[in-house]
Amino acid sequence: MAGVWDNLVTSILGLPGVGPKMAERIALHLLRKKDCADFLQRSLTEARTRMRRCLICGDYMETSSAPTPCTRCLDPQRETHLLCVVEETGDLAALERSRSFRGGYHVLGGVLSALDGIGPEELRIESLLDRVRENRTEEVILATNPTVEGETTAAYLPDLLKSAGVRVTRLAAGLPAGSAIQYADEHTLAQAVTGRRDMN
Amino acid sequence: MAGVWDNLVTSILGLPGVGPKMAERIALHLLRKKDCADFLQRSLTEARTRMRRCLICGDYMETSSAPTPCTRCLDPQRETHLLCVVEETGDLAALERSRSFRGGYHVLGGVLSALDGIGPEELRIESLLDRVRENRTEEVILATNPTVEGETTAAYLPDLLKSAGVRVTRLAAGLPAGSAIQYADEHTLAQAVTGRRDMN
Repeated sequence: MAGVWDNLVTSILGLPGVGPKMAERIALHLLRKKDCADFLQRSLTEARTRMRRCLICGDYMETSSAPTPCTRCLDPQRETHLLCVVEETGDLAALERSRSFRGGYHVLGGVLSALDGIGPEELRIESLLDRVRENRTEEVILATNPTVEGETTAAYLPDLLKSAGVRVTRLAAGLPAGSAIQYADEHTLAQAVTGRRDMN
Repeated sequence: MAGVWDNLVTSILGLPGVGPKMAERIALHLLRKKDCADFLQRSLTEARTRMRRCLICGDYMETSSAPTPCTRCLDPQRETHLLCVVEETGDLAALERSRSFRGGYHVLGGVLSALDGIGPEELRIESLLDRVRENRTEEVILATNPTVEGETTAAYLPDLLKSAGVRVTRLAAGLPAGSAIQYADEHTLAQAVTGRRDMN
């Protein structure tokens, strides 16, 4: 079972969150279940052909033509003076589900990461600055994740945005809804204390 | 992000051990990393074209032609009077790594499972009986997993094999090497006690 099998396992091992045992299990599954393998190959080919980043916000969208702006960017109902900067599509989708924001989005396509060799040029930062300048954006909300890389990326942007005279804010950090203080980690608790709000 | 994206996520969700969040993460990864998606598609296509079950033992083998016997089945050095029955390729590979067995193998291609609708006809049982009869096998070692389905399958086979007048054995159950009795689960300990060996 050399060559071909090893390649299949290696290619699956490259997917996020998949370890060696799981990769072998998936590879075997794909060899045994013709339907599953057919469906995966078909849907992956189709998605890679038809999913494109929106020319404006960078979100993935389904299109049969060359890249265009997505329906959200063309929606006149969205507030244009607010711009929410996210790492990736999934973050945008989660914010939309929360129905807490009706402005525009800008997808960076990742975060700064020295470890993965991702610098500012790899992210959609230039187009963010262009957008802010051209649209006279009033506020940019930095909605990168509260991880080391997300915080680093959020800390890097305000200086660049200053020249555009725009207000820059960051999503609040603190206790998640429905959680228990008893089980919260120290870092979250420290942020909840530091960011405490006046009640009167 | 309807249709095409949903199909991609659904097809990934069908893989063993992958949950909804992980499926979205993998789908996004495949859209973003062209190299990874290329590699997966190429290796999967190639594996599905070139990996075939050996005509005799049922193990997966790499071949560019129609199904043939694998090199192990054709090896004159292997003991032919011993036949080890396993569920799948991975079990066979693990036994080979243990260097504890030099006989032939027979891959069932799964286990009996009422839940998954897998009956005896879905497994390579008929070809097992044919092999045992034709080769005058002396001993069949049942090496299905010590799970409910594996035990059920192992319990189903002896009656069928009886007519061939062959000795049927089962892999020993007990404490794994290097483990601690203190932390062993009750079921394993009970099997270790029941299956205790004489030391003199």
